[in-house]
Amino acid sequence: MQQLTDLLTSHGLDALWVSKPENVRYLSGFSTPKDGLVLLHKDGVLLYTDARYTVQAEEECFVPQHIARDIDVIRHARTLLEGKVVGFEADALMVNKLRQLDGLHAAQLVPTEGLLEGIRLIKTPEEVQKIREAQRIADEAMRHVLPMLKAGVREVDLALQMELYMRSHGAEDRAFDITVASGYRSAMPHGTASEKVIQEGELVTFDWGARYQGYHSDTTRAFPVGEISEELKNLYRHTHQALQLALQAVRPGAMTSDIDQVARGYLAEQGLAEHFVHSLGHGVGLAIHEDPRLAKFSPERPQFNVPLQAGMVVTIEPGLYISGVGGVRLEELVLVTETGCEVLSHAPFAEV
Amino acid sequence: MQQLTDLLTSHGLDALWVSKPENVRYLSGFSTPKDGLVLLHKDGVLLYTDARYTVQAEEECFVPQHIARDIDVIRHARTLLEGKVVGFEADALMVNKLRQLDGLHAAQLVPTEGLLEGIRLIKTPEEVQKIREAQRIADEAMRHVLPMLKAGVREVDLALQMELYMRSHGAEDRAFDITVASGYRSAMPHGTASEKVIQEGELVTFDWGARYQGYHSDTTRAFPVGEISEELKNLYRHTHQALQLALQAVRPGAMTSDIDQVARGYLAEQGLAEHFVHSLGHGVGLAIHEDPRLAKFSPERPQFNVPLQAGMVVTIEPGLYISGVGGVRLEELVLVTETGCEVLSHAPFAEV
Ligand SMILES: [Mn+2]
Ligand SMILES: [Mn+2]
Repeated sequence: MQQLTDLLTSHGLDALWVSKPENVRYLSGFSTPKDGLVLLHKDGVLLYTDARYTVQAEEECFVPQHIARDIDVIRHARTLLEGKVVGFEADALMVNKLRQLDGLHAAQLVPTEGLLEGIRLIKTPEEVQKIREAQRIADEAMRHVLPMLKAGVREVDLALQMELYMRSHGAEDRAFDITVASGYRSAMPHGTASEKVIQEGELVTFDWGARYQGYHSDTTRAFPVGEISEELKNLYRHTHQALQLALQAVRPGAMTSDIDQVARGYLAEQGLAEHFVHSLGHGVGLAIHEDPRLAKFSPERPQFNVPLQAGMVVTIEPGLYISGVGGVRLEELVLVTETGCEVLSHAPFAEV
Repeated sequence: MQQLTDLLTSHGLDALWVSKPENVRYLSGFSTPKDGLVLLHKDGVLLYTDARYTVQAEEECFVPQHIARDIDVIRHARTLLEGKVVGFEADALMVNKLRQLDGLHAAQLVPTEGLLEGIRLIKTPEEVQKIREAQRIADEAMRHVLPMLKAGVREVDLALQMELYMRSHGAEDRAFDITVASGYRSAMPHGTASEKVIQEGELVTFDWGARYQGYHSDTTRAFPVGEISEELKNLYRHTHQALQLALQAVRPGAMTSDIDQVARGYLAEQGLAEHFVHSLGHGVGLAIHEDPRLAKFSPERPQFNVPLQAGMVVTIEPGLYISGVGGVRLEELVLVTETGCEVLSHAPFAEV
């Protein structure tokens, strides 16, 4: 709580109106945070949710709850916030909801961004443990489904088997819609599994993860079915090399854009940089995509370029996509340690 | 397109900046609408999405696409919108995204709510067909899982089997997190399936649905395991009767609050009204919860009370929840017809 009180003080706030689901869950333990709101103020934390969740909120929350909705939430909060300086999350509050906050009367509303995300950057040992468990379940799912990968199988059936495995082995859900992208579809960086039938000679990208007690895992692998072309093998090997080089560069103090550049620079040397169309990685925790972002340095967004710190959990995921040819992405989930990084993902790699 | 142009004209808009995922999908066909935006203007419709989706958008969209993100979207849109009156969706645009729209310069930004939702209220025959298909798959899933319902089984395993069935029989996803709530957990209106083991003598609520080509189904049933108490039987029978009475009242011209009152009034006569803690129903389509809302008349929100019209698809779902005792909810999905309604859901009911 001291850390939270300091956060308010250092931003000149008396309170923070928390609507971003990950932050609501972080502060309260409420597992249906889209239907909740948290009021963080100097004397404590309060969860608002509605009557559908009375019993559930009692069971789950480690902070007091108040059951109300819409206008009644505002009426209740007004008694605590009148005349106060109240921050809100500009990237997690709809324009019409901000207008409702005018009902807080004499409160002064201040847009904020990234306050709680800054605290969530560094994972506690308890949080790392939940991410490890999510990753462990996901790794097992890959081992379970790999023998089913062969020509004639539909992408969507493999995705479903992975998800079924994860959810029947402790995951509360898939971390995101699973990608199984084969052949020409592997040229789509986000090719959620389709009804396409996998063919001999194709490379198949899997991007999957589990959610365990709110925390996510995230990994990508690519496997050939039968013999694949030299061109695809080449893409695979260069992606794999870019991944290894970037992993070796991860350590506390390294700038996120520099890690991105290690992979991007290597691919540029191979004449492939134009096919690496996304950034290198992202933080993972209560959100599947969170800070820090490992991306190319952008003069328009210099704030995204930050030094890595021990306790961050991030992905490293170079990828190459060539329309009409195919694509490859390989992704590891890593914990930044005092001396470098620990790779948390242990799913097998193809031999290409 | 004429209907869309008229919508703009009647609201004094030159264009509408569409960020609500359901509306993005409705206007473009793009199946990952959270990562897209639509610009609706008088000469046409344009989808913006980023380079991850180039191939997918080409495959799916029935409108032109422009690949860009963040500031580049604004730069592109500016050439079309300079000096124009541009509506945005106040209930689907984050406060910080609204600030980005200032980059449109001389455009005049106008908050709107419910514009496209008004068009989506009445389903076309093609839309009804997709909802029917989603419901058909969901009904089959209930028949598939019912033989597995017995003491000793975990809620979460039944939910997983239902979802697996739906997704391996044509559904693109579950419509929402499936509720399986047994015994004391049935007193939670939104008791997503837990690891609780189902016991003899419990009543078990299932609330589930499928998503098919973007369209949802939504149904609730409750089944006893072995012999249940007279108190639970009583709750079940009164909920069932409230459902039947409300269904009989559904017809074009009936006010949504009056349908709610048919169920609520019956339950009040039984002395049970205080346990019916939510509204009677909601529209279903590209969103699982959409307009119209079938709710108690609220003087603060008189606009929610509207006449039903043929072509609307709505749920009727009375429920009773008593903490420490248990609960029941029963839900049908119905199409409002010229003369009354057609019940689209055909999952079996318990005999209680
Ligand atoms: Mn990732
Ligand atoms: Mn419903």
